Amino acid sequence: MLKTSPLAPKTVPTMPQVKGVRMATTASGERYKSRGDLSAVVCDAGTIAAGVFTQSSTAGAPVLWSREVLSNGAGRAMVVNAGNANVFTGCQGKNDVRSMAAKLAEKVTGLEKEQVFVSSTGVIGEYLDMACLEQAIAQDLHLSEQQDWLALANAIGTTDTYPKVARAIIELGGEVIHFAGLAKGSGMIEPNMATMLAYVFTDAKLSQALLQTCLLDVTQRSFNAITVDSDTSTSDTCLLFATCLSGPMIEAVGSDYAAFAAALEEVMRDLAQQIVRDGEGASKFITVHVCGAKNDESAQAVAKSIANSPLVKTAIAGGDANWGRIVMAVGKTNEPVVLHKLTISMGSVLIATGDGLVDGYDESLVAQHLAGQDITIDVDLGGAGAGEATVWTCDLTHGYIDINADYRS
Amino acid sequence: MLKTSPLAPKTVPTMPQVKGVRMATTASGERYKSRGDLSAVVCDAGTIAAGVFTQSSTAGAPVLWSREVLSNGAGRAMVVNAGNANVFTGCQGKNDVRSMAAKLAEKVTGLEKEQVFVSSTGVIGEYLDMACLEQAIAQDLHLSEQQDWLALANAIGTTDTYPKVARAIIELGGEVIHFAGLAKGSGMIEPNMATMLAYVFTDAKLSQALLQTCLLDVTQRSFNAITVDSDTSTSDTCLLFATCLSGPMIEAVGSDYAAFAAALEEVMRDLAQQIVRDGEGASKFITVHVCGAKNDESAQAVAKSIANSPLVKTAIAGGDANWGRIVMAVGKTNEPVVLHKLTISMGSVLIATGDGLVDGYDESLVAQHLAGQDITIDVDLGGAGAGEATVWTCDLTHGYIDINADYRS
Repeated sequence: MLKTSPLAPKTVPTMPQVKGVRMATTASGERYKSRGDLSAVVCDAGTIAAGVFTQSSTAGAPVLWSREVLSNGAGRAMVVNAGNANVFTGCQGKNDVRSMAAKLAEKVTGLEKEQVFVSSTGVIGEYLDMACLEQAIAQDLHLSEQQDWLALANAIGTTDTYPKVARAIIELGGEVIHFAGLAKGSGMIEPNMATMLAYVFTDAKLSQALLQTCLLDVTQRSFNAITVDSDTSTSDTCLLFATCLSGPMIEAVGSDYAAFAAALEEVMRDLAQQIVRDGEGASKFITVHVCGAKNDESAQAVAKSIANSPLVKTAIAGGDANWGRIVMAVGKTNEPVVLHKLTISMGSVLIATGDGLVDGYDESLVAQHLAGQDITIDVDLGGAGAGEATVWTCDLTHGYIDINADYRS
Repeated sequence: MLKTSPLAPKTVPTMPQVKGVRMATTASGERYKSRGDLSAVVCDAGTIAAGVFTQSSTAGAPVLWSREVLSNGAGRAMVVNAGNANVFTGCQGKNDVRSMAAKLAEKVTGLEKEQVFVSSTGVIGEYLDMACLEQAIAQDLHLSEQQDWLALANAIGTTDTYPKVARAIIELGGEVIHFAGLAKGSGMIEPNMATMLAYVFTDAKLSQALLQTCLLDVTQRSFNAITVDSDTSTSDTCLLFATCLSGPMIEAVGSDYAAFAAALEEVMRDLAQQIVRDGEGASKFITVHVCGAKNDESAQAVAKSIANSPLVKTAIAGGDANWGRIVMAVGKTNEPVVLHKLTISMGSVLIATGDGLVDGYDESLVAQHLAGQDITIDVDLGGAGAGEATVWTCDLTHGYIDINADYRS
């Protein structure tokens, strides 16, 4: 087990019980020997689900299957294994996914395999040990109404150094609505319309169409606003289940929807930031904010360029206020910039404008900021427009090399 | 001085004397204390020049100046300092470039400042020490017809661990034509229509228009086909000077032009590969070849995605045959792929096709290949088209972190 990231949250929230959700985890031995690596969640009939998946053209068999489950509209359960991604495994990989779903369906009355999402992450290009997994699903997964979210978060992790959970609780129409979310992810992180693996469960009541709309919208400002290493997984999956057992029917307009979306964004942003805080080898958490862009997309492209630059990330790892590398990362995007108004700040210290260093710039203030763990970079592109975006990332350290030059062994 | 890269060429070529070229180097003390860091080259009147520059929107003052020199059509000299890039330095930076060109022009009869290209690389965002540079140009640069290409290549370097030179000699119309090239670059390397700094001198005779056409064409398959760390410099400059003192007039069609272009490509590809071989922290040289793409641009996008993937680069650093990461890097581009025909090979060993691992795959053969220094990756996108491309890169090691987490100090 890897040492816990120094950026891990100091406290773990007390997770709520979401009505209509049963779960189980077990150590199947498929890859990891002494920890949970297989898990399942089954929501009551009547549950609706929304999902977003990786846009990779080499997406894995579990993603292809789960897209079908989403489109048939009846998905309400999931089975997840950790350590083997079941990607680039051809026909056998597709058969194996179907078998996993079928095996879970067999043990739950009224559950069909077409209602079971499947997720797998880990090494790409290896076949699953299905004898091991099928036996574990059939015999060792004991679904329980006692929701142990931490055990679930642990069992979906691979190179994660801590379990990632988040919650929200709101009140609608006099009734309490619960949100419980979990995620895994540490490397191969630049989600594209999705994330590594993230699941959010709520007992709120709304239509599937509205649930999907809300998930897409919030994903843009949470999982799609993070990067660890610019590599996009073949397994990215984010699912949102609503069991519809609490509160009034939420409609597309009005304060109920606003409250629901805000709570969902809180949970998803929290999980997304926890993924960055567990970025492989991370020693600093970096928030990049870009404004004055042509539009929000342009601002995000610049923010991602800064967040993905190995030279920016290593400078911050070394506590070096080498802001010239930020100028470089802005320039390489070719997004519109009003150069003579471009400004660069770190830790809220204005460092430079298009005419160079500001008068009286005191580098020691920035150095002091960079000695901490929470780093901010603010860039104003100079008024090409009103677009802005925030992206979260981490620094690039020896730890990243240690983990990834020796992953499979 | 950094330890010489293990991938450095084993021998240095005997460099030719190119007719009509004078040069000088000196230690100005602007940044480096005990080595050459300032250099100048002056070609005879009648010389023509071609150039390509960084496409960065934050390109430095020397690049802006040199673009003007190129467009006025009379450029035939250059002055280069190492250690300070003179980028994002506003009006002062622009004045300083003009002063450097003027100072060189002052000491050469018949040379105008508008004929002097200027290049600077190093830290971004600091002002040049002009008192130091002006004095060194005026007093310490002694132009000589004895061409010391190695001294010149050393004096333009920054984090380079060895001087990069290349040559070619051809015969046209019974006369010998010489090519001498030099380059610097080690980090912040993913040139976009240019490279860090590269200069090629020839005494061939041809029109400026043809020279520029040839340079653009060859750049695409040399400097634009390499990457070290996906970061694009604000200072990238590649200049090609022809003194027109040897051989027949080369026209746009015919065997003379073909021979000229082939020799130029040999020199530029050699220099480009030397930059990769000196990639910061590099321990392995990697050739990525992609075929079966929609077109050459699509093939290059996929090859660059593989070559820039931190997970692919760290796996190779660790000698890990983790080919699944290559599948990931193909997928994240969203370039067209015929997935069931996609094939992945390393070291000429076919590893996987769209249906997964090939029968009888022997990982030890790939592991043996990865234990060496020259790694090949071959990807066939499955016949989406006939496009193909080759990109050269290096692995990502602890050395890169060491160098870049502590660059300015």
